[in-house]
Amino acid sequence: MSLLVTGSIGIDTVKTPYGVSENCLGGSSIYFSMAASFFTPVRFIGVIGSDCPFDLVQVFAGRDVDLTGLEIRPQSKTFRWAGTYHENMDSRTTDRLELNVLAEAPPKVPDSFRDSRFVFLANTTPALQHQLLEQIQGPVFVAADTMNCWIEGHLDDLKSLLEKTDCLIINEDEARMLAKEYNLIRAGEKIMDMGPSVVVIKKGESGSIMCSADGEKFILPAYPAAEVKDPTGAGDSFAGGFMGHLAQNGKTDFETLKAAVAYGTVVASFTIADFSLNGLTAISRTDIDSRFETLQKLTKF
Amino acid sequence: MSLLVTGSIGIDTVKTPYGVSENCLGGSSIYFSMAASFFTPVRFIGVIGSDCPFDLVQVFAGRDVDLTGLEIRPQSKTFRWAGTYHENMDSRTTDRLELNVLAEAPPKVPDSFRDSRFVFLANTTPALQHQLLEQIQGPVFVAADTMNCWIEGHLDDLKSLLEKTDCLIINEDEARMLAKEYNLIRAGEKIMDMGPSVVVIKKGESGSIMCSADGEKFILPAYPAAEVKDPTGAGDSFAGGFMGHLAQNGKTDFETLKAAVAYGTVVASFTIADFSLNGLTAISRTDIDSRFETLQKLTKF
Repeated sequence: MSLLVTGSIGIDTVKTPYGVSENCLGGSSIYFSMAASFFTPVRFIGVIGSDCPFDLVQVFAGRDVDLTGLEIRPQSKTFRWAGTYHENMDSRTTDRLELNVLAEAPPKVPDSFRDSRFVFLANTTPALQHQLLEQIQGPVFVAADTMNCWIEGHLDDLKSLLEKTDCLIINEDEARMLAKEYNLIRAGEKIMDMGPSVVVIKKGESGSIMCSADGEKFILPAYPAAEVKDPTGAGDSFAGGFMGHLAQNGKTDFETLKAAVAYGTVVASFTIADFSLNGLTAISRTDIDSRFETLQKLTKF
Repeated sequence: MSLLVTGSIGIDTVKTPYGVSENCLGGSSIYFSMAASFFTPVRFIGVIGSDCPFDLVQVFAGRDVDLTGLEIRPQSKTFRWAGTYHENMDSRTTDRLELNVLAEAPPKVPDSFRDSRFVFLANTTPALQHQLLEQIQGPVFVAADTMNCWIEGHLDDLKSLLEKTDCLIINEDEARMLAKEYNLIRAGEKIMDMGPSVVVIKKGESGSIMCSADGEKFILPAYPAAEVKDPTGAGDSFAGGFMGHLAQNGKTDFETLKAAVAYGTVVASFTIADFSLNGLTAISRTDIDSRFETLQKLTKF
């Protein structure tokens, strides 16, 4: 089934203990689309300014990513982010943040995208996520991401959005902040009370937890990657693998959701092995399936 | 097969956000023995002073724990520890530490224990662990625990001990410190180069990783406990469930080791649900098996 993503396109400068990647392509919708395109066709929505040095048609060449929703604003500048990861790779410092086009009006959902069945609202202001979602007619499964600054500063907007989403994909610290509850199992339950029937809590190198309103639970460790060079995009790649598998199968029962979490985990493990999109562009679907099977074997007892 | 444990017996005072437990029974060999006794008979070695208010015969009544190795030193005082856990329960402060008998000569291994096949050397100075191990004739599988202060201050002794152990069960921070390597997969490999053919790295609420010299790996999340009242003894209970399952089956192939990690995980999840030994004394083997099956279901995809 059709899968739509709205999110950021960024020019990133990333420093990690393994090196520096200057002015490389990044952004949530970019990582998401690259990841999801291994599973299903992707409908892409995003905005760049005239300064963007990347040709996205070229970036996604050979992949089933429909760029009809890409908007280039000649008077605007592209979103830029610079960050430094510290030795443990779980914490990072933002060195520079230029919202640019992200602070302007949201992009328009093209008419041909309005019937999308699976929708991922990557991280941005909840009000903007809401405006984008309202342009979709009768989606089957809507998942959203969010972050600490919206939980702190835009809680009412976020709660209003959550009432219309089926699934929230969120980091553990943010889950605790949103639920006002340290224990992640109880945090997941409290978030489901706000609307979503599925909550996926990402715990970085400690894996993830998923719970559903039916009382089902799933816990999965991260893929034990020997090499972590750049964690940027791991969360959006996870979401891409997750939503890609659901849309490919057109199902959201708990067995399918479990496999989706595992696919998300595996795709993210490739992303973090190299800078920018290099970890994802270097692989094929066969590599993903092979690592999926390895993860099954590694966790089975 | 026979399972022997040597470790501490303590009088603990523990503060957590859930309350205070003053002068309660604790110590590594106590938690280990209680946990392992659900699986197999346990041979217990430890020392207390005349001030110990606990009757260990009564504590282990109805459980197959052989206290022949319990030594009471009338002129000595029992080991005491007081600690405070902070909100996230993963970090704690030691408020008071009185080594007392633990700073004296090690206990003697009774003649009837010298043929023990499975041996767990709970955390103490590596030299002491070595002296205890030398009293055992032809053990099949020797596992040890250690901690940061021995890695920092007694590394030569520890390395010499590791050459004679089959398995090291260690916390993630300590694994990184010992291996001088942040990545846990590579840390496990480096530790195996020091002697053990199996390394189990415990990651607290993030679960555990096991690797073997054959190149096998296993990753398991922690049991998603909704209630964590007191983490004291979690690591020793894990070791008790782990070694208990191995000794019960008399096997150490990787499939058995994987189930052992899962049993250790489950037993520890009961320990942390209440103060002191209350979490373990409240349950039966049936509860453990039931939670083992739940953990299988929670992690299967």
